[in-house]
Parts: sequence; C-alpha cells; structure tokens
Amino acid sequence: MAKYLHSMIRVSDLDATLDFFKLIGVEEVRRKEFEQGRFTLVFLAAPGQEDVAEVELTYNWPPEDGSEAESYDGGRNFGHLAYQVDDIYATCQTLADAGVTINRPPRDGHMAFIRTPDGISIELLQKDGSLEPQEPWASMENVGSW
Amino acid sequence: MAKYLHSMIRVSDLDATLDFFKLIGVEEVRRKEFEQGRFTLVFLAAPGQEDVAEVELTYNWPPEDGSEAESYDGGRNFGHLAYQVDDIYATCQTLADAGVTINRPPRDGHMAFIRTPDGISIELLQKDGSLEPQEPWASMENVGSW
Repeated sequence: MAKYLHSMIRVSDLDATLDFFKLIGVEEVRRKEFEQGRFTLVFLAAPGQEDVAEVELTYNWPPEDGSEAESYDGGRNFGHLAYQVDDIYATCQTLADAGVTINRPPRDGHMAFIRTPDGISIELLQKDGSLEPQEPWASMENVGSW
Repeated sequence: MAKYLHSMIRVSDLDATLDFFKLIGVEEVRRKEFEQGRFTLVFLAAPGQEDVAEVELTYNWPPEDGSEAESYDGGRNFGHLAYQVDDIYATCQTLADAGVTINRPPRDGHMAFIRTPDGISIELLQKDGSLEPQEPWASMENVGSW
C-alpha cells in the first residue's frame, strides 16, 4: 500500500514563501533544521491536513563562502499545486492586497492561478463549483503565464 | 479554509505514466477528456486517497497538423512527489524488474528516488522508518540525479 506524503518545492526565501502560503490558508506544521547539510525543511498543510497532504519546502542555506545562493527556475514537466478554497474572490482579494499578482483572475468564479515567490504555479478552485461572476474579477485580464 | 486537492504534472505518454505509477501502487481514479481543448486529465491516487491527495496528469494531444508534440523538461523550483510504501525493497524490486532506473537506491532501508517517464522525481519512504540494510541495495550505487 502506497500513501501520498507531500510535494517538495525548493524555496530561495523561506519567510516570503511562508507568508505567501499563509495568504491562502496553508501554514507551517513542522520544521527540521539540518546544520551539517545546511538546509531547512518546513512542512506546510491546510487546516486538518497535517500528515494527510503536505507541501515540503526545502530551503538551502546560503553558501558559507559567501557566493551567491542558487535561484530556482521552473520546468514544463511540473504543472501546479491545486487547493480548494471557500471563497475564491475573498482569497484572491487577500492575495492582491498583499501584492501577489493574480496571473489568471477568477473571471468565472471557479478557477484562479497565482505563483509562489519561486514561480511554482498554484491553482485555486472554488469549493462546490463556482460563484456568480462578479466584478472586478469578471473583466480582469490575465497577467503573464501560470 | 483551504484544502489540498492535487499536484499536476504534464505527461508526454499517458500509458507509460500510468504503468509507472501502478508499479508504486498509485492508480487512476478518474478521467476527463476535453475534445475541444485536445487534452486529457487523469487523476491518480493511492488506495483510499481519492479526493484526499491526488496527482493530476495532463496529457496534451499531439498537434492536429502533425507537428511534433511538446516534450517536457524539468526545473529546479519543483523538487519531487513523496510516497510512503510498506516495503521499500519490494517496491524498488518491482520497479527495477519493470526497467525503471533506481536513481537513489534504498541503501539505508529508508529512502529511494526514481523518476517518472517525463523526469518528475519521486521519493519513496519506508513506512515506520527504516528496514534493516540489505543487499543488493546496501551497496548499490546512485545513477544520475533525482
């Protein structure tokens, strides 16, 4: 029997990433520091989903020799992480107020896409389907890709 | 309240990917064909994890004009999908017998890494910690990266 544990993403700024996930209601549940390997693992989960479906953040500490830390590009084989939210407009407003670009606004009251600080695409889906189309979202243009 | 739904990966060969996931005990639970958009979504889950923690496969149909289908590269911001398994040696033997490269063999009886046909890294973790180190795994070398 297999059991899903987590999806791991690499992050260049732990605090910025934690702040980002907090905006959609996904928070730290566990943390491990590895002094020797010079990295930190932080596990995130939505409420009630600890040990059920987590995201693992890997933060590699900056090189000891002062050289530049790695920055993380994206590839096409990974698509996105998807979360259901109770009110997609409220969540997108919270994100926008915090300065997060809504790459694919929820024009249809059903689906939106945003990106983490390291460019991981996040899909937000409205619980139980769709809300009524509503401004300013209904006529909001896409921004970039996702 | 947010709720995790799935991680989406793009796949260039649906059958090869389904065969791969079946080897670790993760199987199709739902499928949607989109004739107009020319793509197929297949949702996978480990036993008992349907609607709890799924992987969404996106398969874009080959271009109608006969031009080459997109192939999918990887990036560094996404790390891996992690699954717990009951017996990491048995799972790795099943994978190896099917021709899957064990990139990071379970030398410690605890952890292994493999890759999907499109290069998505998969971490396998032994349930309840570790099995006793055991040959041929204990002295097996790494292959490539993961």
